[in-house]
Amino acid sequence: MKKEKFPLRGLKDRLRIVLVRTRNPLNIGAAARAMSNFGFSHLRVVKPYEPAFRGARSAVGATEVLANAEQFGSVADAVADCALVIGTTAARRREILHVLENLETGAPLIRAGMSSGPVALLFGSEKTGLSKQDFSHCHWLMHISTASRQPSMNLGQAVAVCLYEIARETEVVSAGPPLAAASDLERITSLLYESLAASGYVRSGAERTTKERLRRMVRILNITAEDAETWMGMLRQIAWKLTRV
Amino acid sequence: MKKEKFPLRGLKDRLRIVLVRTRNPLNIGAAARAMSNFGFSHLRVVKPYEPAFRGARSAVGATEVLANAEQFGSVADAVADCALVIGTTAARRREILHVLENLETGAPLIRAGMSSGPVALLFGSEKTGLSKQDFSHCHWLMHISTASRQPSMNLGQAVAVCLYEIARETEVVSAGPPLAAASDLERITSLLYESLAASGYVRSGAERTTKERLRRMVRILNITAEDAETWMGMLRQIAWKLTRV
Repeated sequence: MKKEKFPLRGLKDRLRIVLVRTRNPLNIGAAARAMSNFGFSHLRVVKPYEPAFRGARSAVGATEVLANAEQFGSVADAVADCALVIGTTAARRREILHVLENLETGAPLIRAGMSSGPVALLFGSEKTGLSKQDFSHCHWLMHISTASRQPSMNLGQAVAVCLYEIARETEVVSAGPPLAAASDLERITSLLYESLAASGYVRSGAERTTKERLRRMVRILNITAEDAETWMGMLRQIAWKLTRV
Repeated sequence: MKKEKFPLRGLKDRLRIVLVRTRNPLNIGAAARAMSNFGFSHLRVVKPYEPAFRGARSAVGATEVLANAEQFGSVADAVADCALVIGTTAARRREILHVLENLETGAPLIRAGMSSGPVALLFGSEKTGLSKQDFSHCHWLMHISTASRQPSMNLGQAVAVCLYEIARETEVVSAGPPLAAASDLERITSLLYESLAASGYVRSGAERTTKERLRRMVRILNITAEDAETWMGMLRQIAWKLTRV
């Protein structure tokens, strides 16, 4: 890829910080504050512990970022407009089927993604992090290099460190063509799943895991925005044919 | 300076995180957690709000770092064994008489300092940051690049971001000769001040500001460990002579 320098400033509007199932109001507030510090503004929360979200919003000194935070019922809805979705994880290895980047190597990819469209960065709950189902919405995963004795970071601190690195003024790897929006990828996933189900591929009892695996596999394809329409048209046709027979 | 790569791992023991007049126990706990995350262990607190420090120490899940934290009555005592002392500040400009580095440019200097001796990194209180007097103990100051609308970071997040950058595995600018310990620099400052006072230089009412200015000026000299003894011997002699007359 060609390397190009361009200011991140005009692109900061393209990053969405998505907090999934956050419990502690202080952490939501801390994430919002770090976003203000580093010049990012789009905060989204998915199924927050309700009193936590209300508490954070009404806290004295709550930032403009927090006041404008959007609430969603699912990860799919929260990332629907994003062409690149990244999940954060404290785990060095678990059964990770995604590419796992360190923050140092991931941040330039995020900046490059922001140069072509909206990007979502997901943070899981304080106790359990992101679930496998959450991961299935992600193109790749990102990890902050920490000490093995204490790998798990505080949520607000993890957000701050990620945004510091993403906001770093540095060379940006120039983008490839714009990627498809998550909503299109989800449509493609659904059409594929319908086709698979209709074709007898999906074992009884394995519906959910099959769908998740499929979702992940589709995300990793890096389907371009330009091609997405074509893919959908093709798959729509296949699904229609299969379910008609 | 020659550039050299060497692992920071063996040097992490040389960094002291010094929290000055911290009020909120959650922030002391958060600083300790970030230290554990990035593999640093020496936490020092100067005049903390006492209930805050006790509260943080007794908190459930308090880290080993917190349990081993040392308490000091003054910044001078807390940095006495350090050959390099750096103050953090949210201010872009105020009447700063020190060199002000960004975290990106400061971190390699800190790593280089750690290769030759103990280094202290100071963080001020949540409301007012470090005072001018605190700054006078510092060789230079460091700033995290933040948005101008919301420059001031949460203390725990600022510590996390600094440690992330310092722990970054990267090229390290190799060190010059080892620098003098802060206790030696303070002795030199005192001897100079005694000499100045005895010589009639210090205006009545300007004692404190003169001492602070002096302290800062001495720190910026970067006196080497090898030369410190000689300097002290020389100044001791001058002071003795002046006060005897």
